[in-house]
Amino acid sequence: MSTTVPVLEILPELPAARVLNALRAAFTELAGGKATQPPQTVTLLPGGGDVIAYQAAQGDAYGVKVSPYLPQPGGRAVITAWTLLLSTRTGRPLLLCDAAALTVERTAATSALAVDEVARPGAAALAVIGSGPVARAHLRYARAVRDFTSVRMYSPSLTASAAPEDVTVAGSAEEAVAGADVVLLCTSAAQPVIDAAGLQPGTVVTSISTNAPRAHEIAPQALAAMDVYGDHRPTVTATAGEMAIAAEQGLWSAGDLRGDLPELLTGACPAPTGDRPVFFRSVGLGIEDLAVARLLLNP
Amino acid sequence: MSTTVPVLEILPELPAARVLNALRAAFTELAGGKATQPPQTVTLLPGGGDVIAYQAAQGDAYGVKVSPYLPQPGGRAVITAWTLLLSTRTGRPLLLCDAAALTVERTAATSALAVDEVARPGAAALAVIGSGPVARAHLRYARAVRDFTSVRMYSPSLTASAAPEDVTVAGSAEEAVAGADVVLLCTSAAQPVIDAAGLQPGTVVTSISTNAPRAHEIAPQALAAMDVYGDHRPTVTATAGEMAIAAEQGLWSAGDLRGDLPELLTGACPAPTGDRPVFFRSVGLGIEDLAVARLLLNP
Repeated sequence: MSTTVPVLEILPELPAARVLNALRAAFTELAGGKATQPPQTVTLLPGGGDVIAYQAAQGDAYGVKVSPYLPQPGGRAVITAWTLLLSTRTGRPLLLCDAAALTVERTAATSALAVDEVARPGAAALAVIGSGPVARAHLRYARAVRDFTSVRMYSPSLTASAAPEDVTVAGSAEEAVAGADVVLLCTSAAQPVIDAAGLQPGTVVTSISTNAPRAHEIAPQALAAMDVYGDHRPTVTATAGEMAIAAEQGLWSAGDLRGDLPELLTGACPAPTGDRPVFFRSVGLGIEDLAVARLLLNP
Repeated sequence: MSTTVPVLEILPELPAARVLNALRAAFTELAGGKATQPPQTVTLLPGGGDVIAYQAAQGDAYGVKVSPYLPQPGGRAVITAWTLLLSTRTGRPLLLCDAAALTVERTAATSALAVDEVARPGAAALAVIGSGPVARAHLRYARAVRDFTSVRMYSPSLTASAAPEDVTVAGSAEEAVAGADVVLLCTSAAQPVIDAAGLQPGTVVTSISTNAPRAHEIAPQALAAMDVYGDHRPTVTATAGEMAIAAEQGLWSAGDLRGDLPELLTGACPAPTGDRPVFFRSVGLGIEDLAVARLLLNP
């Protein structure tokens, strides 16, 4: 005998402001000890591939997102993500949802939240490197935190007809980045995609990179000349490829991280100096998955 | 828009032999590297309590059991358990089920599997300490691996009319244990419930204890005079209260563990000496949860 829980597979579109507010609240609660964020875990699969589990607890809910990476014959891989929410009042399931689209939303919103904290209030020129769903979500959330009057986007395959509205297609990453106040790196590259050393002081670069070990979107050597922030201090410095490599090479250390999102949102870390480019790196957190999945409970 | 997955809340009764076979296969695959068992994780809840997550991968499935421990006003606690299975072929959910009853089954079946490996073939006298659902499940599974002609059960509250069929109610734990070939400790006690030092050579004692830190059902001091086995070498010696305490006191060390279930099932560890009592301790593993939940996919 059985009952069912809803499995949301086609999700309602979430307003950017609502997602941003949910993440802002979650990171603030994390800062105040009202939410918990254990490290992600990786379970290797006997036949190859793995499952990453992202857990967190906030308010009256606990969430776990499980994301299998399943290599297929021919070199491709199936990647899915599912989030299970439990009530921490009753101990019962609240929701099981397809978290693939939510992961894109929470990742982009987290970058935008950081932009809101570390970019100049008058930031007007935006560069987006990448043109896939993650890049387009970044653009949407970035526009929710600043009034960008100029947006340039670059990816090797992007054509003008395929570009989002009010976006100029750049001929190269360098052309996109030139003069930008904010640069959103949204590639699946595991190697540097821009020359961070050439950026103007105060320019904000966000990076998400990929789950591949040691993956990075800027050169590790560039960190020493930037104001570096991350999503969550306990995990980002060990997990982010450029930080791990820079630390190994003695060019930068975890102690050089100026702050993380919980600290930025509560004023517990220094603001950018203004004298150097700013780098914000996220690796992705269970609390982001939990915060956005909770929005589905009250659509 | 949404679909649903089945949430099994009232489970079909599983034949003991089927559960035992599933666990035997799972532990054998674990020994051969065809299954993976990461450590359990504990996520503390901001308001108190925690959620333990038990993960594992075997065959074409990955499973995670999440078990919240939720303290309530008045000193009681809500404890639930839910298992989510994903296909490692498609990455999609296979099942979400109430794992409370399954946890009782897999725990009891694991103890019985160990009994089958380390008890004398002719073991005839059984003692069960405890009389709740976990104890009754232990009795059922133990009877599936040995033909016990005498079963004595003890718990402070047990009366003859409430005892299972063909079970003699003992007046004390000592009386229940006297002359037993196999002793199943099935209590929620966090302190010793029998005098392990007084047992005859070859007597097999199984213990599950509770999740409370440092909980134990036999005295840590007794380990040094016993042949000690556990469910899984990478976790049991650090997690089992009596092992951790004995190691701290320098009375016993993790290196003294003679073997675990994967090793016992594949002949990769020594059998009991026959000269000393035998102790088998389980702390519970995700692969057990996965193995029994998979049975629900093909009822």
